[in-house]
Amino acid sequence: MHFASDNSGPANPEILTALNAANTGYAMGYGADEEMAKVTARIREIFEAPEAAIYLVATGTAANVLALSTLSQPWQTLFCSAPAHINMDECNAPEFYTGGAKLTLVTAADKMTPANLRAAIEGEETRGVHGPQRGPVSITQVTEFGTVYTVDELAALGDVATSYGLPMHLDGARFTNALVSFGGTKNGCMGVEAVIFFDPAKAQEFEYRRKRGAHLFSKHRYLSAQMLVYLTDDLWLRNARAANAKAARLATGLRNAGAHFSHEPQANMIFAALPRATHQRLFDAGAVYHLWDGTLDGAAEEELTARFVCDWSIGDDQIDAFLALL
Amino acid sequence: MHFASDNSGPANPEILTALNAANTGYAMGYGADEEMAKVTARIREIFEAPEAAIYLVATGTAANVLALSTLSQPWQTLFCSAPAHINMDECNAPEFYTGGAKLTLVTAADKMTPANLRAAIEGEETRGVHGPQRGPVSITQVTEFGTVYTVDELAALGDVATSYGLPMHLDGARFTNALVSFGGTKNGCMGVEAVIFFDPAKAQEFEYRRKRGAHLFSKHRYLSAQMLVYLTDDLWLRNARAANAKAARLATGLRNAGAHFSHEPQANMIFAALPRATHQRLFDAGAVYHLWDGTLDGAAEEELTARFVCDWSIGDDQIDAFLALL
Amino acid sequence: MHFASDNSGPANPEILTALNAANTGYAMGYGADEEMAKVTARIREIFEAPEAAIYLVATGTAANVLALSTLSQPWQTLFCSAPAHINMDECNAPEFYTGGAKLTLVTAADKMTPANLRAAIEGEETRGVHGPQRGPVSITQVTEFGTVYTVDELAALGDVATSYGLPMHLDGARFTNALVSFGGTKNGCMGVEAVIFFDPAKAQEFEYRRKRGAHLFSKHRYLSAQMLVYLTDDLWLRNARAANAKAARLATGLRNAGAHFSHEPQANMIFAALPRATHQRLFDAGAVYHLWDGTLDGAAEEELTARFVCDWSIGDDQIDAFLALL
Amino acid sequence: MHFASDNSGPANPEILTALNAANTGYAMGYGADEEMAKVTARIREIFEAPEAAIYLVATGTAANVLALSTLSQPWQTLFCSAPAHINMDECNAPEFYTGGAKLTLVTAADKMTPANLRAAIEGEETRGVHGPQRGPVSITQVTEFGTVYTVDELAALGDVATSYGLPMHLDGARFTNALVSFGGTKNGCMGVEAVIFFDPAKAQEFEYRRKRGAHLFSKHRYLSAQMLVYLTDDLWLRNARAANAKAARLATGLRNAGAHFSHEPQANMIFAALPRATHQRLFDAGAVYHLWDGTLDGAAEEELTARFVCDWSIGDDQIDAFLALL
Repeated sequence: MHFASDNSGPANPEILTALNAANTGYAMGYGADEEMAKVTARIREIFEAPEAAIYLVATGTAANVLALSTLSQPWQTLFCSAPAHINMDECNAPEFYTGGAKLTLVTAADKMTPANLRAAIEGEETRGVHGPQRGPVSITQVTEFGTVYTVDELAALGDVATSYGLPMHLDGARFTNALVSFGGTKNGCMGVEAVIFFDPAKAQEFEYRRKRGAHLFSKHRYLSAQMLVYLTDDLWLRNARAANAKAARLATGLRNAGAHFSHEPQANMIFAALPRATHQRLFDAGAVYHLWDGTLDGAAEEELTARFVCDWSIGDDQIDAFLALL
Repeated sequence: MHFASDNSGPANPEILTALNAANTGYAMGYGADEEMAKVTARIREIFEAPEAAIYLVATGTAANVLALSTLSQPWQTLFCSAPAHINMDECNAPEFYTGGAKLTLVTAADKMTPANLRAAIEGEETRGVHGPQRGPVSITQVTEFGTVYTVDELAALGDVATSYGLPMHLDGARFTNALVSFGGTKNGCMGVEAVIFFDPAKAQEFEYRRKRGAHLFSKHRYLSAQMLVYLTDDLWLRNARAANAKAARLATGLRNAGAHFSHEPQANMIFAALPRATHQRLFDAGAVYHLWDGTLDGAAEEELTARFVCDWSIGDDQIDAFLALL
Repeated sequence: MHFASDNSGPANPEILTALNAANTGYAMGYGADEEMAKVTARIREIFEAPEAAIYLVATGTAANVLALSTLSQPWQTLFCSAPAHINMDECNAPEFYTGGAKLTLVTAADKMTPANLRAAIEGEETRGVHGPQRGPVSITQVTEFGTVYTVDELAALGDVATSYGLPMHLDGARFTNALVSFGGTKNGCMGVEAVIFFDPAKAQEFEYRRKRGAHLFSKHRYLSAQMLVYLTDDLWLRNARAANAKAARLATGLRNAGAHFSHEPQANMIFAALPRATHQRLFDAGAVYHLWDGTLDGAAEEELTARFVCDWSIGDDQIDAFLALL
Repeated sequence: MHFASDNSGPANPEILTALNAANTGYAMGYGADEEMAKVTARIREIFEAPEAAIYLVATGTAANVLALSTLSQPWQTLFCSAPAHINMDECNAPEFYTGGAKLTLVTAADKMTPANLRAAIEGEETRGVHGPQRGPVSITQVTEFGTVYTVDELAALGDVATSYGLPMHLDGARFTNALVSFGGTKNGCMGVEAVIFFDPAKAQEFEYRRKRGAHLFSKHRYLSAQMLVYLTDDLWLRNARAANAKAARLATGLRNAGAHFSHEPQANMIFAALPRATHQRLFDAGAVYHLWDGTLDGAAEEELTARFVCDWSIGDDQIDAFLALL
């Protein structure tokens, strides 16, 4: 009954099999391994982007901040929503890697709207050199609240950014759960993320940034091997579909039990409110998940929202045991 | 016949076995996994340091620069030798992580002497606020030229640093090959390094620095599992002894063939000079290693130094085949 | 009829007289001049702080960001109001000098309340290493909207900060216009600001930061001379009282003419709304000031707020000419 | 008898007269003052560079590090001589402003030679992403040892830089003492330096950097006024010629008294060796200058080199009094 994070579950066994297979003989280090060439070819094929430059790192934060620092200048401000991982959960890594750029928070219940994005950009009228200059727009897909931008919604946000000449960055830690994926760690890998530059003009700069950020792996083949098997035989889609299906099963059960949803679940995360006494009972029985807007101290009948995340590996029996308790 | 780097070989199969074993069920992320508690206990035991704080990262550069930034201030200069990895091979990562500290190069043929270290420190007379202030001393063990500081030599360098009130940093990427180890990546792991604070006063700061450097792993158990098995049943010592023994076999053969050694081999790296024509012949036959002070263009009889590195996995048959060719 | 900024007017002639007097013979550079010793003594006397360390720089932004970087760590967030100069008008200088700290915006109409400050601090629950840690609270006195914190209000904000163990920073660019002064540039000097550390523990660090920020003046005597005469014979108070008196005269006239005030004027800045057609007429007649919430394009009868700033030197005849036009 | 630094003397009275003249009425801030337009026109005329972008700052370190950060990337290394001000005397300001670039020291007795510069550049073979990339070459004119590059020597160094595609930076703190000037502070101004971009492509970036470095003056007219009078009626040349003539008088006297010169004096700085007992006697009589390679503790007859700097204002009577003592 573990719903704390998609980071808590095991890697898909196919990942381990691939690592074992990669562990023979000698391989050139620092990204010059043969598997990496295959990863590049595969991602170019998936995205129909024959010129794209592709790089692997081991953490999602590294992928975000290396990409953002390549897209921005230290005197700019980046546009993101308040709950964005880059704002809430990276301990100022974006400010560190960009050399001191700022974040401007776009109002968003969960998904950013074009109107709110435009208002935030307009609010940063640049006033010559006095205020920060406008920098990239960063969107998270799947959002931090488990909702999913449609292709049209993403395109509309992109149109706003383009109208101001600003680049877009997509934090796709859970992107597969929507459509396609950059991030592997949260979706059944051990630790690997791909950064994709559809325009390779900045690729060389990224390489220097990755190295000086201490994120270039000497034994790079073990990153490549994970990403390669992840993109082979649709493992990425199979993992994501499994996680989404589990979350749908859990959401149905929660709904039947009278839980209230603050965001409509669309992927593998559920934000549902239950009475405090119910949470207490579930925790006592061994369920693992995070309360989102309060603690166990307080009135028994008051409702508290909790976040439930399903990873690819969670068993139906675990979900059903949890729902039975509920 | 692969002697390019100890980063090129495979991980010891025991590492893979441990990763497989760790890959079941749920585990708390970000260093709160159960294996990490065991790693901490084991390292404290090995170093007889019951208060030590221990952290894992995935690259040697990350271990170096996170540690150095915790020990220094941006207005200081760090003392190291010119061939030090932090000077030559980290693309300014130390300058980035320290917020702009400087490196002062200590004269050293391979090992730093107390007299040369003292001279470098004296050379940085601080002149009030105008020059950089004196910062930590960084020593590499095994040195970049394959030589090993004795315990007495390290103590003497430590005495110099202490006499100026400066902290010491030990870059132990190949430390096991000398005595004990911090670094696992170059010694048969897939990618894991331990940073050990014997005085835990700075441990909290290190945690913030690791996170904002994007080096805190969500699925941390896979780092822990590597380090744990590495420190169990002396795998670290077995790997290092194997690599050193292979290098000794290779060095003997090279010596018998008339090679000249610019540094006396003491661990798993050999710097040996051979005629250019010999290098050409060896490369043509499939040997893999790096020339150190020149290229294949030039007089056939001129001697060029090359670096040969033996990893734990290199077969005696490979060494003998190489020596037979030679 | 120039009300654009207190940066636009001339320096008080007494400042020039002092510079002329200081311009004889030789003086030690970099803050070791004799005038600086007198500045230190005078500020310690005014603030009844015999241990205080005092430093001079030439710009208000330098004073702010050097002080804030000394009080904070790169992994922290600073609390300030949205219109704070450090948020709006310093082109990310705080992020640059702190090495990448973040700003958390405290809700404030003009003055920050203890409740809003507390809410902002609580909102930055630190969640281990994931979010930024809580850092200093920065207050601007006089506020960017020309209102003045009472001593009791400042004390109440200080109590909130202290209850969380956070240091306080006071941006006193217009502090004299309230009570006492740090900043000289906006109050009749040519360019000089004092940074005062009531606790000298961080003074040495500040010196390194000032130097590496390129803000230590070699011919420092010209900063000292300005600050010394500024603090002699109450020039600071005379300048501030003059500016406040001029602003009161202007405010009375504006009120009589039917202007609406979005903030009650308490120092030398006035935010007053007039119909667009009136602004157009005043600009056409040569008045100089900034519109705050709109442009001249639009309905003639719509009211737009403008900012009017009086410096120490503005003549009553200029104010009366402006009011006559109005 | 004050020969400590060209920073110790007074500003030329013409500078004060210009400041007084500028101190009337209102002027736009932040570089939009009318005097600045005249400064730009005058510098473009002097350098026959009608497209040049010109900026003023108040310290030489600010001029150096803002310019260098605009010319380089954080993953590059800058080439300069060991005694260069940016290496010795700026407390890591270049590392701070560039975001962590490194300095590579070019061997130089006083002036850099093309061969030594080329050797230093070649030594930074880039080895892919591992080492720092090659960045700008920084030359100091007049050198820190008072010698002067000829136009041909500068052109030859420029040719080396160009052959590697590297930009050149000229630290001209004492440039007038050679030929023309950027720096005013050491040459009779109160505190002003000009940064000149002959190619304005980077000018916009410089403006952001100056602002976020806290080096944009609100009351900018007082910088402009200094620079304007400095460039009018050859004040810059008159000051420099005066300082050079004084130094020549002093050097002749020193030579006649048997002093030994470690560098042949070519501008306003002299490095001359005298017996320790002589230094003691001169200091006792009130002379002020810096010993360069030792202290007063030691054998009376041993020779110690001292640095003597003449500023524009030193009186012949002071020099003659000093020589009489000698």
